[in-house]
Amino acid sequence: MRPSQTVSGYLIQRLRRHGVRHVFGVPGDYVLTFFRELEQSRLRVINTCDEQGAGFAADAYARLNGLGAVCITYCVGGLKVANAAAQAYAEKSPVVFISGAPGRNERVKNPLLHHKVRDFDTQMQIFRQLTVASTLLDDPQEACREIDRVLDEALRRKRPVYIELPRDMVGVPAVPRRVRSPAAEPGEADVLREALEEAVEMINAARNPVIVAGVEIHRFGLQDQLLRLIEKTSFPVATTLLGKSLVGESHPNYLGVYWGGMGRPEVRKRVESSDCLILLGAFLTDINLGIFTARLDPGRTLYATSEKVSIRHHSYEGICMEEFLEGLNRSGIRRRARPRIASPARPGRTRPEPGKRVSVRYLFRRLNTFLEENMVVIADPGDALFAAAEMRIRRETEFVSPAYYASLGFAVPASLGVQCANRRLRPLVLVGDGAFQMSGMELSTIARYGLDPSVVVLNNRGYGTERPRLDGPFNDVLEWRYSRIPEVLGAGRGFDVRTEEDLEAALLAARKHTRGFSILDVHLEQDDISDALERLTTSLRKRV
Amino acid sequence: MRPSQTVSGYLIQRLRRHGVRHVFGVPGDYVLTFFRELEQSRLRVINTCDEQGAGFAADAYARLNGLGAVCITYCVGGLKVANAAAQAYAEKSPVVFISGAPGRNERVKNPLLHHKVRDFDTQMQIFRQLTVASTLLDDPQEACREIDRVLDEALRRKRPVYIELPRDMVGVPAVPRRVRSPAAEPGEADVLREALEEAVEMINAARNPVIVAGVEIHRFGLQDQLLRLIEKTSFPVATTLLGKSLVGESHPNYLGVYWGGMGRPEVRKRVESSDCLILLGAFLTDINLGIFTARLDPGRTLYATSEKVSIRHHSYEGICMEEFLEGLNRSGIRRRARPRIASPARPGRTRPEPGKRVSVRYLFRRLNTFLEENMVVIADPGDALFAAAEMRIRRETEFVSPAYYASLGFAVPASLGVQCANRRLRPLVLVGDGAFQMSGMELSTIARYGLDPSVVVLNNRGYGTERPRLDGPFNDVLEWRYSRIPEVLGAGRGFDVRTEEDLEAALLAARKHTRGFSILDVHLEQDDISDALERLTTSLRKRV
Repeated sequence: MRPSQTVSGYLIQRLRRHGVRHVFGVPGDYVLTFFRELEQSRLRVINTCDEQGAGFAADAYARLNGLGAVCITYCVGGLKVANAAAQAYAEKSPVVFISGAPGRNERVKNPLLHHKVRDFDTQMQIFRQLTVASTLLDDPQEACREIDRVLDEALRRKRPVYIELPRDMVGVPAVPRRVRSPAAEPGEADVLREALEEAVEMINAARNPVIVAGVEIHRFGLQDQLLRLIEKTSFPVATTLLGKSLVGESHPNYLGVYWGGMGRPEVRKRVESSDCLILLGAFLTDINLGIFTARLDPGRTLYATSEKVSIRHHSYEGICMEEFLEGLNRSGIRRRARPRIASPARPGRTRPEPGKRVSVRYLFRRLNTFLEENMVVIADPGDALFAAAEMRIRRETEFVSPAYYASLGFAVPASLGVQCANRRLRPLVLVGDGAFQMSGMELSTIARYGLDPSVVVLNNRGYGTERPRLDGPFNDVLEWRYSRIPEVLGAGRGFDVRTEEDLEAALLAARKHTRGFSILDVHLEQDDISDALERLTTSLRKRV
Repeated sequence: MRPSQTVSGYLIQRLRRHGVRHVFGVPGDYVLTFFRELEQSRLRVINTCDEQGAGFAADAYARLNGLGAVCITYCVGGLKVANAAAQAYAEKSPVVFISGAPGRNERVKNPLLHHKVRDFDTQMQIFRQLTVASTLLDDPQEACREIDRVLDEALRRKRPVYIELPRDMVGVPAVPRRVRSPAAEPGEADVLREALEEAVEMINAARNPVIVAGVEIHRFGLQDQLLRLIEKTSFPVATTLLGKSLVGESHPNYLGVYWGGMGRPEVRKRVESSDCLILLGAFLTDINLGIFTARLDPGRTLYATSEKVSIRHHSYEGICMEEFLEGLNRSGIRRRARPRIASPARPGRTRPEPGKRVSVRYLFRRLNTFLEENMVVIADPGDALFAAAEMRIRRETEFVSPAYYASLGFAVPASLGVQCANRRLRPLVLVGDGAFQMSGMELSTIARYGLDPSVVVLNNRGYGTERPRLDGPFNDVLEWRYSRIPEVLGAGRGFDVRTEEDLEAALLAARKHTRGFSILDVHLEQDDISDALERLTTSLRKRV
């Protein structure tokens, strides 16, 4: 039987067709037969320790690959990834959550089957809140159409979807009725023309236009279009924090990360003094806006997202960023002189001082020079992210962080997803100790599949972003000996880093160690925080 | 200011009043000020590594204590405990989930605040599916009334509730308007009288009545009533698996655990051949019914739950188990001769054979004799649970396991909850290696608070309950060196157990080691399973 002839086979085939090569998950009895089918297919099953790890890994995978997939069992698996689904929703990461479920034949008379919460559809109800489309594959006649519908929604809207597969539907013959995916709805030509005319006029009349690019540019695959616009106009360009690295950070027009008062003052000045700010695909979130320290005047702003285009105080509905950007590239925008950008002092060589304790500032200065072309920086929320915001990323899409939803514990499992998506990338994982304790043991999965990230644990014995605001014993965590984890896993290399010299030796050894992960336990003073966190804290304190 | 005069103070005061002494959680910025209030109150804050651990710990705590509480931040915390809430719902464990949230003043114009998923009420919508009552404390006038309403529901229905506390409501003056908790609705006296008359007649006419007691007896605190009924009638009594240990297992009338074809044949025979089966507070779940191998004839059954009473094929609505049980105790039920119960061979002394590998059977025989009065057995779902079902528990409520919802990874965090609820109890944690890898690092929290469970890891390198049904690499887990975990945590003692002699030495050392946890890595053959799992597997295989 060809796999495409069954419901489950069709699902697998469509995932493959859309470029999925790995499925992250944990098996369970309601999904066991589907795991066997996955195992026998060309999809690779990646078994994580806990479902949370699978959710985060697939999210990161989707960010790089364009689509990701999680496969878990009913409720005890599915509800553990509710938070990962929420993050994928908030940050527009297209992840397909596939859950096994009791068979149709088992649901008769509503028995109390194990893993059931309240009703058979409890999990489905919950995922409706967290996804843009969901389906229960309980009808062989409709299953293929439903699979296509939800996968198309994931791809079109770049957000998670949910597929529930009753276990007695695995292997059931299906009727493939491929519906054409709805083409991205073409905006009405007149609306687009009017918007473009107005935009071009506004841009050409401006003295100092600046582009701020956000994460949607990345999610909708518009980086080339953006680059063309930059080349064409020679406008300076900044990114939001969530969009960091979507423009190669060595690009001569690149200003830096704009996040209001949290970022570098010269970037802020350049952006906020522009008389024509072109905001493309940016989420105006609190963190992106530097906790609302950003001062962006809508009267001088042109703002395009995947949903609409706004110019000054009015909006054009029903036209999408993609065609708008394409239109700008075809339009008669006047080219400017190459902007003069005072780029931040090139990260100079750091010379370790014998016996000197590592500080946050030294650590990130050193990491900045440590970066190589093939490295991807994965930053967990917290000071790992804030300090990393000013690191200089070499290529595109090489900075991954949940800078909006900000779920702690993302980075280690994310590195699993990143390296599955692109085995040539080498992750540099930056994670706080509190966050590491949530999900860091997914190093086990990393070891199992022979991956080689370098994990830097910022060990300051607690939740360092909270302490400056309001401290108490609830901000403490037990101090683990992170460098001993390889002894538990029987894999990887651990480094205990206290001094600048320790750091130097550990980084060089980690770079060389490509047969497994490296973990660096970097001991920091408890009150040592990055400049960005310092600014953030001051600002947050005012708000609560 | 008295704590009772603020919204948050009132919440803390009511939790205390209902017997809560510990709150399990992880802080975050939306809940930070409330954590400070908790810290300054008489409630003790227990910080877990991950929110999942807090959810499971509070569930176990609630099972022993009568009410438990979790405190987490908005979405990134709350959605991580969705699964724990689901388990508490399914198995009737009254846990109060308190989530911080953006302030009322921050919600104006619906900004994109960090941790927000879709709308401000997304998390609330989700918890509505998982709780029996929920509230957003956004009105100081109503807050106290709302707190009372949801806490009363938790206590009355023995299920989880959800309280969302916007951060700007902490410390806000409140208007305490205590509403009297609705008394347990009195059934109509006539209904109760008729039901009791019929029940007593049926019981007295029967040749061999048998009681099967389920978990609701425990949750509603009716163990003394049940004991009185047993003393009064001298009927033999079995429990369901989920209700295991609610009758002291040395009681002369105790038959054993009844779970259809999965349990001991003599228990099954006794129960299924009864001409008057008195089912009290039992959930008729698949696992409780031995995956539907149970043969219970409704025509000979009297079935009381917290919701209704059924006799043979008809039901009496609106009377509750409590008054029904009390009625039976007051009624003229005829006393029988003490039943002759062929109790399972008393666990004889096991003598370790030098050099012999530990088997599942040997392990549980030995653990059975290892049990002492002050020990509580906490069994994770899987063979840990199935094999433990036949262990002989000395006292009441000393067996804790999610035998219905069956979420893996419960046991280690549960031991934290159990020991907080009752410091005199010493947990013996039985957990598979797959389950341990999900949440076992909560040993960190156990170490932090100086608790001393003994954790037995059934190390068979994978998901042992799945292998017999359908095996593949997806059932494998990386083999950790579990006994080295103390080196990472800087606490606890680890034991590597391969032979019967190793086991002997490790158990005796663990018993003596009361200054921290012990972890026993018990290496088992991959295909070595308990008799119960053998029977379960055979039965499950037929159903899929």
